[in-house]
Amino acid sequence: MPAKVVEYYYDFSSTNSYFATFLTPEVCRRTGAELRWLPFYLVHAFRHNNHSLDKEPRAKLAYFWRDHQRWAKRTGLPFRMPSIFPIKSSQALRGAIVMQQWGKEQAYIQEVFRAYWERDENIAAPAVLGQIAVGLGVDANAFLRESQGEAARQEVIRITDEGIKRGVFGAPTFFVGDEMFWGKDRLDFVEELLRKSDEH
Amino acid sequence: MPAKVVEYYYDFSSTNSYFATFLTPEVCRRTGAELRWLPFYLVHAFRHNNHSLDKEPRAKLAYFWRDHQRWAKRTGLPFRMPSIFPIKSSQALRGAIVMQQWGKEQAYIQEVFRAYWERDENIAAPAVLGQIAVGLGVDANAFLRESQGEAARQEVIRITDEGIKRGVFGAPTFFVGDEMFWGKDRLDFVEELLRKSDEH
Repeated sequence: MPAKVVEYYYDFSSTNSYFATFLTPEVCRRTGAELRWLPFYLVHAFRHNNHSLDKEPRAKLAYFWRDHQRWAKRTGLPFRMPSIFPIKSSQALRGAIVMQQWGKEQAYIQEVFRAYWERDENIAAPAVLGQIAVGLGVDANAFLRESQGEAARQEVIRITDEGIKRGVFGAPTFFVGDEMFWGKDRLDFVEELLRKSDEH
Repeated sequence: MPAKVVEYYYDFSSTNSYFATFLTPEVCRRTGAELRWLPFYLVHAFRHNNHSLDKEPRAKLAYFWRDHQRWAKRTGLPFRMPSIFPIKSSQALRGAIVMQQWGKEQAYIQEVFRAYWERDENIAAPAVLGQIAVGLGVDANAFLRESQGEAARQEVIRITDEGIKRGVFGAPTFFVGDEMFWGKDRLDFVEELLRKSDEH
């Protein structure tokens, strides 16, 4: 049997990724799939597509917040609107690459999402990211130095460019093999496909 | 107990409205809610919001078609991509107003969606709409004359303007009281709210 893998493109600045970051590990647990976290510069993809949130109708943005509140209620996740939005997420994304060496990738990613979307912290600030590292038992100086380094930066660029080539235009985006799914509201389709692959 | 009502804004040119047009009556049947069909000039709302499908990234439009195929499979609805897209839906929308007097509104709307999204017919052509009227036992000449008349046109404009004022920016959009929901993929939230109102 081939290994079941979910590739998950996320960005900390994406509200829908907040929800997916806590729901997707549950989907993978239930289906025995491996989860690969792929930090994605959403702003880079938006620029590539000449897209901007400013171009969205005001009624749509207002509706999105209502929709997020409904999902918060349904999932029990304590989502709240941050005071800084959108936010520069690049260093936080690089941090996820750096955390791999200490086996703290998922814990770090979930903690950054909580800091921004639950506790309204400024995740663009190195001090805030350093605090998160400390909370995970990682040396803040080592973590921050590597997060600001060229290797992590290049790796996030590589992942983002590869994602765009594969057709990623937003976050969260999931791949199961060649099948792409976009949105927190498509995880049921992801799960269905993972279960179906058991039947073979 | 106040009557339960779902107000449903649709446009024939909207793929997602195709799915909602067959799924929403089922939601209303299961919950004992009344369904109000509201023909909506989507192109008018897009113009209002300075929005155009041409501005959407190509990767997103490609993904949408894949998503529609998945919904077709899940729902069993025989959706297929029409050869004329987008299509001018104004006369077909006015026809829905005209059909009310004969009690054929829902049957007509579902038939127009089938003609366009299942059988690839040109629903911008009066001859095609006349055929649909005949199939419903309605005199095609009377139907077409009224569909081209000013009263039906003004009524669709009124409904569309009112929708835009309420925050409608796309289709399908549903209202249950003041709560607005957008997308075929939010009908589970609509159904949940309708059931909750039973508890009071």
